[in-house]
Amino acid sequence: MGTDIVFAKEVLIRFGHCDPAGIVFYPRYYELLNALVEDWFNEGLGIPYAELLGPRRTGLPTVRLETDFKRIARMGDVLTQTVRIARIGRTSLALSIAFVGADGEPRVAFEQVIVCTSLDTHLPTPFPSDLRAALERAPSSQEQ
Amino acid sequence: MGTDIVFAKEVLIRFGHCDPAGIVFYPRYYELLNALVEDWFNEGLGIPYAELLGPRRTGLPTVRLETDFKRIARMGDVLTQTVRIARIGRTSLALSIAFVGADGEPRVAFEQVIVCTSLDTHLPTPFPSDLRAALERAPSSQEQ
Amino acid sequence: MGTDIVFAKEVLIRFGHCDPAGIVFYPRYYELLNALVEDWFNEGLGIPYAELLGPRRTGLPTVRLETDFKRIARMGDVLTQTVRIARIGRTSLALSIAFVGADGEPRVAFEQVIVCTSLDTHLPTPFPSDLRAALERAPSSQEQ
Amino acid sequence: MGTDIVFAKEVLIRFGHCDPAGIVFYPRYYELLNALVEDWFNEGLGIPYAELLGPRRTGLPTVRLETDFKRIARMGDVLTQTVRIARIGRTSLALSIAFVGADGEPRVAFEQVIVCTSLDTHLPTPFPSDLRAALERAPSSQEQ
Repeated sequence: MGTDIVFAKEVLIRFGHCDPAGIVFYPRYYELLNALVEDWFNEGLGIPYAELLGPRRTGLPTVRLETDFKRIARMGDVLTQTVRIARIGRTSLALSIAFVGADGEPRVAFEQVIVCTSLDTHLPTPFPSDLRAALERAPSSQEQ
Repeated sequence: MGTDIVFAKEVLIRFGHCDPAGIVFYPRYYELLNALVEDWFNEGLGIPYAELLGPRRTGLPTVRLETDFKRIARMGDVLTQTVRIARIGRTSLALSIAFVGADGEPRVAFEQVIVCTSLDTHLPTPFPSDLRAALERAPSSQEQ
Repeated sequence: MGTDIVFAKEVLIRFGHCDPAGIVFYPRYYELLNALVEDWFNEGLGIPYAELLGPRRTGLPTVRLETDFKRIARMGDVLTQTVRIARIGRTSLALSIAFVGADGEPRVAFEQVIVCTSLDTHLPTPFPSDLRAALERAPSSQEQ
Repeated sequence: MGTDIVFAKEVLIRFGHCDPAGIVFYPRYYELLNALVEDWFNEGLGIPYAELLGPRRTGLPTVRLETDFKRIARMGDVLTQTVRIARIGRTSLALSIAFVGADGEPRVAFEQVIVCTSLDTHLPTPFPSDLRAALERAPSSQEQ
């Protein structure tokens, strides 16, 4: 990538994430992905996600998502989740996210495109200025 | 695509699929996707999915998944889910799946690659012969 | 109970409902329960659930729920879900719901109390008249 | 209760936990409940949950669960989850669990009975001795 990690957080693979094959049921990865982005907004960018999606009526729907499931993860594994910014547009944001095992090997990699919308119209809208400023302060954007 | 639909099924977008923005929370789409593939195996291919993943110890993990979220879907919408076979390999299967609204417009489109594995080793293995035969009998394979 | 079944519907226990122990992960039962009540409203009572919870701004939160998990259910099982009305109040409704296996033995039994609320205030409110009439027409209410 | 809290942990109510009414979709509370018990085992009791349910083939199914949903919780709320031991039996364990808001008011209260089983037979079995010892060391058991 060449871009920096802008946020990282560990996650425990729980019993409830796993299927009868003893490995993560893949829809659960997307719940983890959404939680990670939420944590990044709250803890990394300093933009309270619940305010944004709630009273500020600003939506952040995903419009495109590519996923490579590279290796299996099992109950009890602790994965490191990393967020990189691939591109910041006027109304959209591309992220490269990886979930990496304790052995350093990636389990899943996501390329996600999020669009900023008005929750009243569900139409794209420019990022609010505080969110844009926070995104631009993130490490990777200096490089580009 | 040029390939035929090999399975179609309607699904109701439920209250529990939707988020505070009133639209489908995208991880729920992947639960619907997995249920659709399960129904296709059971009802379309005539290969009981629970036997395959259970006593037959045959895994069907997803290794790659591209998703385009094209339009929002809301609580109460009924979507038609369609499965097309993009490619049948020795140990893998590529599917093109769409969820289409009552207005004929797609809501989500998936390009999914599934691999056949042994649940004892989690390594790829050729499709069992009954599954391969059922896949090859599906309409789209005649065309190719 | 002595009360009649007012709605019944089969459900397939899916791969995605089950955990590494090969049996239903119990939080999934509550998703099935909510879907059953939704189907009962739509298909049994003739009151579109998505309209009620959406434009009609009428909430139906659960305020009390007792569950007995009586026997395990496995991937591939088909359960018959039955709804009985235990009590209809002015703003609340008590239901007795069972999920029964093909062998006639119950897997799970729920005693659920639902309250009718305004989604603007989240305070209890009498059932809308069409919903009350539909509930009172259901078989069990004749008995009481 | 009179019994002591044996484990406490905060949880953020996320966007993905909430429904179109803007409050927690109640099946999500049970996912949080299961995660809390898992964290208590791992962090409080010092018994790795994934080992227990995995290689040790020891199941911990819930057989009875009473829930009172006392007040609504919204996206962005941080709840304090507390675990109390109501009773330790030879093969079963009764817990009183509460999720309490920042205002000190309970949102949900659970009375949960968990049984220890063999994952080979799904039949009840006495708690393994390390788990029993850890349970008995927990504060509330001193009192009884």
